[in-house]
This record gives sequence, structure tokens and C-alpha cells, in this order.
Amino acid sequence: MESKFVQLRKYLAEAMDLLYVYELLSWDQQTNMPPEAAETRGQLSGTVERLYHLRVSSPELGQLLEDLKSEVENLDPDSDDARLYKVTLREYERRTKVPPEFVTELAETIGVAYSAWERAKSENNFPHFQPYLEKIVSLQRNFANFFVPYDHIYDPLLAIYEPGIKTLEVKEIFNALRPQQVELIRQIDSMPQVDDKPLHQYFDPQKQWEFGVEVITKFGYDWKSGRQDQAPHPFTVGLGHGDVRITTRIIPDYIGSALFSTMHECGHALYDMGIDLSLERTLLAGVKSLAVHESQSRMWENLVGRSLPFWQYFYPRLQKTFPGKLDDVSLDAFYKGINKVEPSLIRVEADEATYNLHIMLRMELEIALIEGSLEVKDLPEAWNLRMKEYLGLKPENDKEGVLQDVHWAHGYFGYFSTYALGNLISLQLWECINKDIPDLDDQFKRGEFGALLAWLREKVHRHGAKFDAQELVQRITGSKIDSAPYMRYLRNKYQDIYGF
Amino acid sequence: MESKFVQLRKYLAEAMDLLYVYELLSWDQQTNMPPEAAETRGQLSGTVERLYHLRVSSPELGQLLEDLKSEVENLDPDSDDARLYKVTLREYERRTKVPPEFVTELAETIGVAYSAWERAKSENNFPHFQPYLEKIVSLQRNFANFFVPYDHIYDPLLAIYEPGIKTLEVKEIFNALRPQQVELIRQIDSMPQVDDKPLHQYFDPQKQWEFGVEVITKFGYDWKSGRQDQAPHPFTVGLGHGDVRITTRIIPDYIGSALFSTMHECGHALYDMGIDLSLERTLLAGVKSLAVHESQSRMWENLVGRSLPFWQYFYPRLQKTFPGKLDDVSLDAFYKGINKVEPSLIRVEADEATYNLHIMLRMELEIALIEGSLEVKDLPEAWNLRMKEYLGLKPENDKEGVLQDVHWAHGYFGYFSTYALGNLISLQLWECINKDIPDLDDQFKRGEFGALLAWLREKVHRHGAKFDAQELVQRITGSKIDSAPYMRYLRNKYQDIYGF
Repeated sequence: MESKFVQLRKYLAEAMDLLYVYELLSWDQQTNMPPEAAETRGQLSGTVERLYHLRVSSPELGQLLEDLKSEVENLDPDSDDARLYKVTLREYERRTKVPPEFVTELAETIGVAYSAWERAKSENNFPHFQPYLEKIVSLQRNFANFFVPYDHIYDPLLAIYEPGIKTLEVKEIFNALRPQQVELIRQIDSMPQVDDKPLHQYFDPQKQWEFGVEVITKFGYDWKSGRQDQAPHPFTVGLGHGDVRITTRIIPDYIGSALFSTMHECGHALYDMGIDLSLERTLLAGVKSLAVHESQSRMWENLVGRSLPFWQYFYPRLQKTFPGKLDDVSLDAFYKGINKVEPSLIRVEADEATYNLHIMLRMELEIALIEGSLEVKDLPEAWNLRMKEYLGLKPENDKEGVLQDVHWAHGYFGYFSTYALGNLISLQLWECINKDIPDLDDQFKRGEFGALLAWLREKVHRHGAKFDAQELVQRITGSKIDSAPYMRYLRNKYQDIYGF
Repeated sequence: MESKFVQLRKYLAEAMDLLYVYELLSWDQQTNMPPEAAETRGQLSGTVERLYHLRVSSPELGQLLEDLKSEVENLDPDSDDARLYKVTLREYERRTKVPPEFVTELAETIGVAYSAWERAKSENNFPHFQPYLEKIVSLQRNFANFFVPYDHIYDPLLAIYEPGIKTLEVKEIFNALRPQQVELIRQIDSMPQVDDKPLHQYFDPQKQWEFGVEVITKFGYDWKSGRQDQAPHPFTVGLGHGDVRITTRIIPDYIGSALFSTMHECGHALYDMGIDLSLERTLLAGVKSLAVHESQSRMWENLVGRSLPFWQYFYPRLQKTFPGKLDDVSLDAFYKGINKVEPSLIRVEADEATYNLHIMLRMELEIALIEGSLEVKDLPEAWNLRMKEYLGLKPENDKEGVLQDVHWAHGYFGYFSTYALGNLISLQLWECINKDIPDLDDQFKRGEFGALLAWLREKVHRHGAKFDAQELVQRITGSKIDSAPYMRYLRNKYQDIYGF
């Protein structure tokens, strides 16, 4: 007789295969698909998604989990099997508590809401999107209520993307962080601005591509297990062991886009590439914390890729790659340019000092909408008020304001906070790494990133989805998610750059 | 109440989605997949293949077909519904005879065998591939034996690709054809050889690509519903309405490779692009006769693309595309060059006069392997013996011999004969087309291919898989598959070119 856990793993292998196939369809849609295939592709993705859903919500899986219940009680709760049980049960319960008619209604609402959002954005017409967003908010509330009892109605939404953390915990973290970031930005704003003009000139796209490849090859991206393509909105996709693909976006007149998006996506990819083989084809290889994932991408993009030691190695190479472009720009000037702080309206273009404020603004509005303390019709005003308060800016129109992100039109409520949590986690890990590898800066100056990658593999990557964000951070750092290391980092860095 | 046929179509839509997903996995494997993903990809393809298999072999489908039986008897046997019933029933019966575990084992074996073949070919190392091929042959025999009783053990394999035709019928057609082709080659060989040196010089790869694109755009390839990529072994893949992709292979020192492979694959793609929308997401859009398919690719490649009228239009353009390369080569000399007959080792580079002999060689070896009268370890020797007998050549190594084709690594036993049958069919259709469109040559001279495409759409493409090869040829030409038109064509053409 096969053990029940062997049966569970076999059962899940097919679910994971479907998940990877779904991801391939999505990768292909964004990189290769001909335009006339849009409707057909919707059908293919819909079928594969439905088959995945059926697989992880079936009575057969319910029975397997029920049979395993008593066995799990005798296991080490940190063992692979115990964790696999926990994560699978969570997915099963999440899928079975929501009636299929609701899933259909949500999907249909989102289908039309997305088009309405596209039109509203292009026409700068929030009222056109308003009734659709009202419907979505109402459905999100219904969704949450399938998970009664909860501490906060926003908890079940947050749990879709970040299981194991509560709304009140996130609020507490963000409430401590917000005034400090606002204050820091004021300090920076009082100092003379740095110059980033040298970044904004023509850089040959092919050479931009090649330089990015050189950098992430040094980081340890394994080209035999991956590839890079171009996409309008860069993303990373894990298609199972041996196939973790990244994308980048090249802007000919700006060196920063391809450079940092390549490093960012490489950070995601290194996580997926480092998952222990024993977890392959189980949910522990697939359903990871978005915050931990983001901590990896932000670490390689910012803590490595915007650091002085990194550029002490790479800047002469960059200068050689683009002769005549940066000859008169000193390393110090370049370093300051790529770390320029400037409050802006658009989240995806925000720097390290302002980024989290964009997130907090969104999360506060989401919570208010879901709680019912804010009505959709008042959303643009609420957005603009906060934008003024946190970043000192007023959007000219809703296109640059409340309509800028696709997330709400897609029904992604609960998603945004993971971006900021990822930033905080990256610094908590970073302080540990610097204790464990005291000469990290010197290694970067020599173009060596192997010790960093080995540390991340051992402490983070190999575990896949075994631990929630809070658990993992606690295990590694001894404390829960905390904004102090991030604020220390920002203050040190920008004191140095802006001289206040 | 939904009609049973509406239920059948809904049921089959998911099966077709899975088939398209399987094809996407295969396209990706041959164009984009990183090498380390081979094993994972085998698993994904195995899972999708298994789900497709389950869908078209389920008791639910069996019941639907049973319920439809009496209804179908009252239908016009050539109606879409009657044909859908027939093709679906055939697929159902073929599938219910094969156990799901077998399907998974075959798919997984093929997943790893493909990589082994790639390596064996690149290293010229047949023994590396041998154990994989032995496993595949053994699985093919097992497969055939699920279909006992049969007239010949090879029949069930042939039926995968060419339903409605038996091994003995094909043998009979080939036995009539082979001595005539061998004799024709001897006649040609007795005459002075034509010169094709001008084709063998450096032609800029990017310009080769662009010229191919120009040609097939004229043919009617719809770039909004497709794309072209490079692949070592060019192929076409239909991923449903709006997504029919082709691949080509560019050899910098030879103009013929990309040129004719692009036209060949375009011929396949035009067939898939022309299927009537009402057949979409049913098996009538998916499981077509390979011989009919090949008749389309060979028609555009050879009957159009190697004809004098075609080049009367395109040759000045080709000369302009590659300045200094063909300035001193007359149209007549170029036309003779691309139609040079020379027995060669590589099937995909074979000319029209020798091509079928490559096919017959393979089919005979396949039959011997499946019958058990030939062992895999003796395959290279058997290959080389026949090569000597039919074409008077001896491969220097297995790379140019038994390892040259991907088909066996893919488990495609029974496939090869469809290539030769396609050649024969293309000429049977061609004689009809020339009767219906008497000024076809003049149209080609003006770069016009619309009337030809319209004829093919009406008579062949729109029907998808409604008719088997024999039925379709009978409907259009009034007779069964027959080699006489092909031999007439070869004799006329080469008498003209070689002057015997």
C-alpha cells in the first residue's frame, strides 16, 4: 500500500502540472501570441484554470486530507509533510468555501470591468468605471463573508495573496512606517537635488540587453534552466524544475528600465530556481508568499543593484559598453543618479524612498471600501487627498491617479500590501546576511555574488512555500515583519547621497 | 433541453482546448524551452495528453455517442454533424482501447527520448539513442496490440495519422511507384547535370527571412493569426482559431533551405487557417489527414514554389534582395538549379524526384521494426543498405543516416508514408486545379495566388477533418490515391530540365 502522503503527492503532481501549463499560456500570451488569438487563448486558459480548480477542490482530495489528519498530528510541524498538509488544506478550504456560481459571477464581472477600466483610463473618465468597481467591491465583500468568522473583513482578501498575516498586523506595521517615510522625504526635499540626466540618453537596445545578461549571469541566473524575453510589463514565470523564465522591458532613451527590471525579475527567478527538488510538483513549490517573493526581487534590484559596491565593479564595464555616453560621469554621480528621490504620481516609476507610500495609500483605500466607510464615488477625492498628504502631489487627472493600476479592475483586492511588505522583509534579511557575511561589500566590488546566493538558497529559496512570510522572517531574524531595518537603510543611504 | 449535438460540441470543446495546449507545449519545446526543462516538460505534456485522452475516452462521451446513434442514421452522411459523429466515434474507439497508464508512459518516454535524440545526433552517437528507441518501438508494438484483430500489426499505427487506409494499400501504391522513380533517376543521371552552385553562396540570413516573409504574405499567410520562428526541424502548429504558427530553418550558405521550408510550412498553415469556423473546437478542426495536409505543403513548396511562372514573378525580386549574388545567373539557370536532381542522404533536402524513395526506405524499416524482423541495434546497417540500393549512396555517419529525423524520437511510427502520399495527392489535385483555373500560370507570373488559395479553401481547407484522404481525393478527382499524375508531372518536368 502506498502511504497516504505518497498518494497526496501523486494527486498534487497533476494539479501542479496544470498550474505550470496555465503559466506557460500566460507567458506565451505576453511574449509571442498573435493578436487574433485573444479569444481562443481565453478559452484555453479558462479550461486549464477550471481543471486546476476541480483538482484542488475535489471530494477525492478532501477525503485524502481527512484521512491524513490524525497522521499529521504526530509529525514535526516543520517537516515537509506537515507543511504540505497545511498548505494543501488551506488551498482546498479556500476553493471549497466559495460556491461555483460566485466564481462565475466574479469572473464575468471582471471580464466587463476590465474593458470598462481600459476605456475609463484612456478617456480619463472615472464615472464610467464607477458602477463596475462598485460591483467588484460588493463581490469582494461577499467573498470575504464566505470565510466568516474573521477578525477583520479584509483578512480573507489579504489571505489570498499573503496567508498567515492579518489586516491589523499590516496596519500596525504601516502606521509605524508612514510618518517616518513622509518625514524622510521632507528632509530629502530640503536638500539640493541630484542629477540623473546622464541616464536619459540613447543607449543601444541590444547592448542594454547584453549588459543585463552579463549582470544576472554573475548573480547566478542559470541560462540552461531559463531564458529572457521582452514584454511590455516585465514578469517572471516558473514552469517547474528547469524552466524559470524572465522578461524585461528596454527603453532606448533610458538606461534604468531594462537594467533594474532585469535584476528585479532575476531576483524572483533565483527564488524559483532554488526550491528544493523534493518539493517539486507539490503546492510547496507553487503557492509562495508574494511578500517573500518580492523581498527577493527588491533585494537584487535595490540592495545589490543600486549599491555602491556593485557599481564599483560594474560601472567601468557599463562605461565601456556604451562608449561616449558616460565617459564624463563619475561613479559617484552615476550612483547618485540611479538613487535620485523624487515624489511622483505613478507607482511603478517610484523610487525606494517613496514607493511604500503609494502602497499604503492603496491599502488604506481598499480597507475603507471593503469596510464600507468609503464609497466608490468618493474614491478619486480620497485618493487625491492622500496623494497630497503623503507625497505632496496632486494628480492632474484620474489617469495619473486612481485609474493608473489594473489591479482593482482585475479584482485583486488584498494584493498591493505584499509589495511594501517585501521591501521591509528584504532589509530584515539583509541585516542578517551582513552579519553572516561581513565582507559582502568587498565581494560585490570583485563582482562576486555567490555567497549571497548561497545564503538565500539555504535560508529562503529551498523552502519554497513551506513557511508563511511571518514564520520565515521569524525563523531567520528572530522577529516578525518590522519596518525598523528598512528605515535605518533609507536614512543611512539618503543621508549619504543627499548630505542632510 | 439542449440537443445532443450541442452537448457533444460543448463536451469536445474542452478536449480540443487540451489538444491545443499540448501543441503549444510542443511548439515551445522546439523553439524556446531551456535544456534543463526536458524532464519537467515530459511530465507536463504527459499530463495534458492524459487529460485529453480521458476526455475523448470517457464513459460520458461513450453514452453521448450511443444516444446519437439513431439520430445520425437519419442525417445526410456528408453533413457536419454526421461527420463529427463519425470522426469522434473513431477517436473514442481508438482511445478506449488504450489504457491511460500506457498513454502517460509513452508521453513521458518521448519527453526524455527527444533530448536523447538531440544529443545523439549532435554527437553522432546512435548507441546513446538506442535504448530510448528500443523502448519506443516496444511501446509502439504494445500500442498496436491493443487493436487486435488487425490485417497487419502496422495498421493501427498508420491509422493514427492516416485513418481509412491500410498498410497493404500503401504498400501497393509504393510498390508501383518505386521502380518508376528509380528508373527516372537513372535516366536523369545519364544526362549532363545542371548547375546549382549559385544557390550555395552566402545569403544574409536576415534578408533570407524577409524574402520568405514576402513570398508567403503573397500566398495569403495571415500574420495577425500566426507567427514564424526558427527551429532546427521546421514544423507548423495549429493552436486554434487565430493562432497557426510556422517555423523555418535558415542556412546562411544556401538559399534553398529557408526559402522552400518557409513555403512548405506556409502550405500547412493555410490549410489550418482555412478551416470553417463552424468546425472550431470540434475534432473536425483538429484530427486531419496528414497526407492531405502534406499535399498542401508540397503543393505550395513544389508545384508553386519550384515552378517557372512563380519565378518569372519573384526572380527579379530575389536578385534585387541579394545584390551581387545572382546578377549573372539567368532565370532559366536559376530555375534549373532549384530543380536539380541529385540523390542525397538527407530527406528534408531531397528533391522531388528522389524524395519518395527516402519515405519508402523509412516505412519499410518501420514495418520491419514493428513486425520484429529487425532489431533497433541493427537499424543503422539496415538503413545504410537500403540507402545504397535506392539512391546509390552510403552515409558517412549516423547523423546523416538513421539519426537525421526527429519522428522516431517523437514516437511517430506510421507517419512517414503520409509525406509520399501527400506528394501523390498534390498532383491529383493540381490536375483538377489547372482544369478549373486555366490561366493559373499567368496569375503566378503576375504574383497572384488568390484564385489558387480560394480553390483550395473551397475544396479542401474548409472541410478540416470531415473527410479521410481517400474520400476527399475521390470527391474532388473522381478516383482514389494514385501515383500516375505524380509520375506524369515528374517525367514532363525533368524531360524539360534535363532534355532526355
